[in-house]
Amino acid sequence: MIALLHDVKASRYTRTVTPHFIRKIYAILILLLALAALPARSQQAPRTEHSIEQQFLAVPDPRHAEQHMKTLTSEPHMAGTPGDRKTAEYVARKFREWGFETEIVEYKVWMNYPAEVSVEAITSAGVIMRGPTRERVDGDPFQDDPRVVMPFSAYSPSADVEAEVVYANYGRPEDFDRLKELGIDLHGKIILCRYGENFRGVKVFMAQEAGAAGVIIYSDPIDDGYFRGDVYPIGPWRPDTGVQRGTIEFGFEHPGDPTTPGWPSTPNARRVDPDSSPDVPKIPATPISYHDASPILQALGGPESPREWQGALPFTYHLGPGPVKVKLHLKQDYAYRNIWDVIARAPGSVWPDELVIAGAHRDAWVYGAVDPISGSTAMLEAARGIGHLLQTGWRPKRTLIFASWDAEEQGLIGSTEWVEQHEKELESAAAYFNVDTGAVGPNFRASATPSLRDFLREIAKAVPDPKGGTLYEAWKTSVRRENELQAKKDLPEVGTLGSGSDFTSFLDHSGVPATDVRSSGNYGVYHSVFDNFEWYKKFGDTQFVYTQEVARVYGLQMLRMGNADVLPYDYEDYGKEIGTYLDAAERLAAEHLGDKAPSFAPARAASNRFAQAGAAIKNAAHALSHIPEGYDLNASVARAPSHVHNLNNARSAGNLERLNKTLMATERALLLPAGLPRRPWFRHAIYAPADLKGYSASTIPGVNEAIQRNDAATTAEQLNELTKALNRAAAVLESYKPEQK
Amino acid sequence: MIALLHDVKASRYTRTVTPHFIRKIYAILILLLALAALPARSQQAPRTEHSIEQQFLAVPDPRHAEQHMKTLTSEPHMAGTPGDRKTAEYVARKFREWGFETEIVEYKVWMNYPAEVSVEAITSAGVIMRGPTRERVDGDPFQDDPRVVMPFSAYSPSADVEAEVVYANYGRPEDFDRLKELGIDLHGKIILCRYGENFRGVKVFMAQEAGAAGVIIYSDPIDDGYFRGDVYPIGPWRPDTGVQRGTIEFGFEHPGDPTTPGWPSTPNARRVDPDSSPDVPKIPATPISYHDASPILQALGGPESPREWQGALPFTYHLGPGPVKVKLHLKQDYAYRNIWDVIARAPGSVWPDELVIAGAHRDAWVYGAVDPISGSTAMLEAARGIGHLLQTGWRPKRTLIFASWDAEEQGLIGSTEWVEQHEKELESAAAYFNVDTGAVGPNFRASATPSLRDFLREIAKAVPDPKGGTLYEAWKTSVRRENELQAKKDLPEVGTLGSGSDFTSFLDHSGVPATDVRSSGNYGVYHSVFDNFEWYKKFGDTQFVYTQEVARVYGLQMLRMGNADVLPYDYEDYGKEIGTYLDAAERLAAEHLGDKAPSFAPARAASNRFAQAGAAIKNAAHALSHIPEGYDLNASVARAPSHVHNLNNARSAGNLERLNKTLMATERALLLPAGLPRRPWFRHAIYAPADLKGYSASTIPGVNEAIQRNDAATTAEQLNELTKALNRAAAVLESYKPEQK
Repeated sequence: MIALLHDVKASRYTRTVTPHFIRKIYAILILLLALAALPARSQQAPRTEHSIEQQFLAVPDPRHAEQHMKTLTSEPHMAGTPGDRKTAEYVARKFREWGFETEIVEYKVWMNYPAEVSVEAITSAGVIMRGPTRERVDGDPFQDDPRVVMPFSAYSPSADVEAEVVYANYGRPEDFDRLKELGIDLHGKIILCRYGENFRGVKVFMAQEAGAAGVIIYSDPIDDGYFRGDVYPIGPWRPDTGVQRGTIEFGFEHPGDPTTPGWPSTPNARRVDPDSSPDVPKIPATPISYHDASPILQALGGPESPREWQGALPFTYHLGPGPVKVKLHLKQDYAYRNIWDVIARAPGSVWPDELVIAGAHRDAWVYGAVDPISGSTAMLEAARGIGHLLQTGWRPKRTLIFASWDAEEQGLIGSTEWVEQHEKELESAAAYFNVDTGAVGPNFRASATPSLRDFLREIAKAVPDPKGGTLYEAWKTSVRRENELQAKKDLPEVGTLGSGSDFTSFLDHSGVPATDVRSSGNYGVYHSVFDNFEWYKKFGDTQFVYTQEVARVYGLQMLRMGNADVLPYDYEDYGKEIGTYLDAAERLAAEHLGDKAPSFAPARAASNRFAQAGAAIKNAAHALSHIPEGYDLNASVARAPSHVHNLNNARSAGNLERLNKTLMATERALLLPAGLPRRPWFRHAIYAPADLKGYSASTIPGVNEAIQRNDAATTAEQLNELTKALNRAAAVLESYKPEQK
Repeated sequence: MIALLHDVKASRYTRTVTPHFIRKIYAILILLLALAALPARSQQAPRTEHSIEQQFLAVPDPRHAEQHMKTLTSEPHMAGTPGDRKTAEYVARKFREWGFETEIVEYKVWMNYPAEVSVEAITSAGVIMRGPTRERVDGDPFQDDPRVVMPFSAYSPSADVEAEVVYANYGRPEDFDRLKELGIDLHGKIILCRYGENFRGVKVFMAQEAGAAGVIIYSDPIDDGYFRGDVYPIGPWRPDTGVQRGTIEFGFEHPGDPTTPGWPSTPNARRVDPDSSPDVPKIPATPISYHDASPILQALGGPESPREWQGALPFTYHLGPGPVKVKLHLKQDYAYRNIWDVIARAPGSVWPDELVIAGAHRDAWVYGAVDPISGSTAMLEAARGIGHLLQTGWRPKRTLIFASWDAEEQGLIGSTEWVEQHEKELESAAAYFNVDTGAVGPNFRASATPSLRDFLREIAKAVPDPKGGTLYEAWKTSVRRENELQAKKDLPEVGTLGSGSDFTSFLDHSGVPATDVRSSGNYGVYHSVFDNFEWYKKFGDTQFVYTQEVARVYGLQMLRMGNADVLPYDYEDYGKEIGTYLDAAERLAAEHLGDKAPSFAPARAASNRFAQAGAAIKNAAHALSHIPEGYDLNASVARAPSHVHNLNNARSAGNLERLNKTLMATERALLLPAGLPRRPWFRHAIYAPADLKGYSASTIPGVNEAIQRNDAATTAEQLNELTKALNRAAAVLESYKPEQK
């Protein structure tokens, strides 16, 4: 994944909505034919549906998973390299083998590889450190492959700079504010900061804004090294020479290829000059290990750092500047390079234009056993399971798509270019299911748009857990509760979708409801050479049973969403959740804006209206499908979509068709016509990545970010835009009126 | 001070109460004479009282303070050494110079000095560490004095043991429980644990109970070394070779000389065999630096330690046992040695048998600039201020005593032996004021019996703070709020008195209301050679202005308590505070004892009765002294004791006399006739040091400790004893009935 915490990206873009009446009518006819053709099966349908799920669940398998991982991690496969091409071919071959219509989609994108990197620390005593030290531990069989890319920051410029060093903690906005308060001069300095707490691009952006000459980023052992536990090869944590590679693309306005902001990087695409792209940093940056950072930090003078900035290296951290200097020599090899998404389809039998998409990226900084191959492996096993159904003649009602993304690590490029290329079709996407890191331990975690939380929980009830019982039970016990509404209901927690992986473009740009799942554990080798098969077999999902579990969840999502007669969204929960965002934002506004804080009453009324319309449409769906009241619609429609056998006439089928279109249009109605202020490519009114300033507002971002900038006028304007979006979404839901007999 | 956190000590002892009617009547006559003699001054008296305080406040002085400290820290002065005797003589000379009746009181007590100490770490590679390494940093002028005692644990036996090592975190009961759960064999092992979180004697007691062969205790840099900030000589924190000396006397049954449990160590005192004393550990222990602990910890195998056990040394901590072994050679020089308390008196002019006592210990492990000389210095400056008043002919109404205690570090010995020798007189002690560490930074902190909290706060309003404004304001802003009742009233917080310094015997054994004050700051050289004048001038109270502040508070306590016509105790607050202890204990009882938890209703009724009687006696005092209602009695009687001029006849004077005796008898009524279970020397029903198990119950200890031992029968019994004590104290207060005209 691009970032362990969250990520930040953004396009000028205008959206056109075209109703597809002809295709819709065609779909209704298909449905009627299907229903008419199956009167004798209608009593058995629920069992059949259940047995389909059972057939699917029997397929994902630890041995197969291990084989995929072994193959896909056998050599380094950074985006655009021959190793990457080979993994695309393996995945494409498998998809085809399992019965999917498969294509390798190539994009040409602007990327750098490192040509020369050196970092030297110099004091009055001379050069005290010549780095970077090669990543190396005792006995790792993968570390010496000549194809291993030296640690670097994607999208750093080339540079030769030498300057005094300043320590800036995590490089958060508040860290830079603190340095300013303390009177530390940053102009022309090299900023040394530690990984963690934010997207690494934020660290570089903040340093650039502060007038720094360059940035070096290291992994402190307090965050993912010996302080956390034994280091590789004894334990799973980062050894002294381990380095976190990663992109620092600003992505302030958009993720993806910086030369095609807002449109796909197809062969003949128009390009902007990379040097003028706001997505590309102007100052150089490079990552190092704590082995190399330690002598620099220890040689820093100046005041003692604030005590909460202290890491686990065995001396007291100071701020500088200097007297130690760093000489940074970076030569980057920039070029347009080809990358390869692999796209597999199983066309829908009833509503072929409605898309259910699952994606996982495939490119890794080096071997990427955990990130991303454990996720790709889970996706492959899910696809194999669905392929097994296809081979029995089964067909999904909606079109299923599996996508193996490339160049996620550089800036979500493969998924972003594809979304930009398929915006039109995505208007009838029912959901996007992401997996990045798949399984690295026993702790199931999920994030989703609120409309899909119960959908995920119902699936968890159908999946057995390796620890015994169902995943639902294991998940409920293991997850920390942070969300008030979910804690109150004693539900396993589903988090909000930030950024840092490939759901970003789907949700934030195109308004496709999304989920992201993983099974987490201790993992200290993120983006290093040590994230390899050897490490994974020792410390990751060593028996591949959690990979199997994730594959089952992932596949069931596809099956249920692909075959649901009524799409299993919960807009009542969504509306209530937005109510809590409004509560928090109102408190924040009172703090930041005082008397100038605008009234939240209209927005609150709109979120209530949205929640009520969400409740009403659930009732309407119940009525339509003769489901007893009090029965959980999400569960029922997802678990036993064949209750549709009650829909035994054209009127009902027509209502169902209209109901689903209505449900699907609702999330899209939450898109802001003008996008977010200063980053219009991001259009979702409720969710966005934290912005480059690192503010944590990923919910109702237009409003929260304006508040955090103490901008009362924009707050009022964004609150108004949000209110309109909520009323628009409520109106969509309210527009559904079933035809009566 | 004996312990940075809290300490644990405990006597079979029977108390006899004898009323001193003759002296009382004498005192009434004196008072009447005094009142009759001063009719013309009566209107001016408040101003006079104010001007006496002003005269006092003008005396304590940074330059004098620095001179005391410089003299008293000029050479090592561990209890019983020639250096210690010299400090006693300096203090006695000063007290005499300032007009006090002064004596040096000698006790003969059983103590060890170290003769030989060695700690070696051995692996298959041979001896990897030969310690202890001498305490040493660049440029400290005091470290090389041959009289500096090598680091040792007071009351450790001599021993030669060699065994595998187990790491036991802070050596708390819960840490030993965790090791047991994890299946770590402790039998015959040497326990390596870190300082902090509890009294070091608890660590050794727990190890002994677990069957360990010995204990080594080190200072982890995460607790007071480089993790906290720059180390000496750059900053105030502990350098790599710095070692915390200290006593490990179990003191389970009593503090003080282990050979005279419950009676004074006078020349011809009966002695018990030290080898049979429950106060003396059976297994050897010695302290080391992290410089010496580091190679041992790093060579430990076995499982990774629980992650919250990790310190700041640069590797992952494991539990052992072994493979590393430690060879411990300790030769202790035990003997009966003389120690010297210095006692100074200013006899009372009105109620000479009523004692107001202030104490500070004088003995140090080495130089003890902070601990204890900063406190001794504050006491000296307070005594000099009061001496100044004495020289003008002023006399306190009650007898003032200043006490310079010896051998506090070994186990509160000087104060405990003195208290045991003077139990009878202490029955009419109005208060004991302690200072140990005096000033090491700008943050005023206080602990007290609840009856004296407002008394302290009123004093803080009369003392200017070096940061500007009054101490009251500075204190209120700087102190953390942990006490619910005080936080609700927005008051600067006064904590509860645990143990670890010389108030222990006064409060816990003799029921004398007490306070303890200090001004705190960053202090990482506790009990090391580096706690010296050089360190103090760089990092302690460098300008001696906080020493001056503490001296002023300390002296004002003596003045106001010595001259108050109505003793300024607040028993209403005391009763309410006890109510909160009952709340907490009731919750704990529900947890531990479930259905078997006894009813807290009688105890709660008794604490309410006590609080109400406390409120009623405040009103009676107001009525007696014609103070307008709503006026704060504590403040008024303390600030302007001369309102007593309204008491212009024998009836009122008699009432006053009876009122004060009543007030003074109340705290004594809280003593348990049988003392606490298993440690009857500790008699206070409300406060005790945490017991040796390290349980944090220092409030209503009989009840809480029984609960924590899951002992329902003892809980019920102790709750009953507590209820009786509270009713007894309430009845004392209720017994006061003023004679009417």
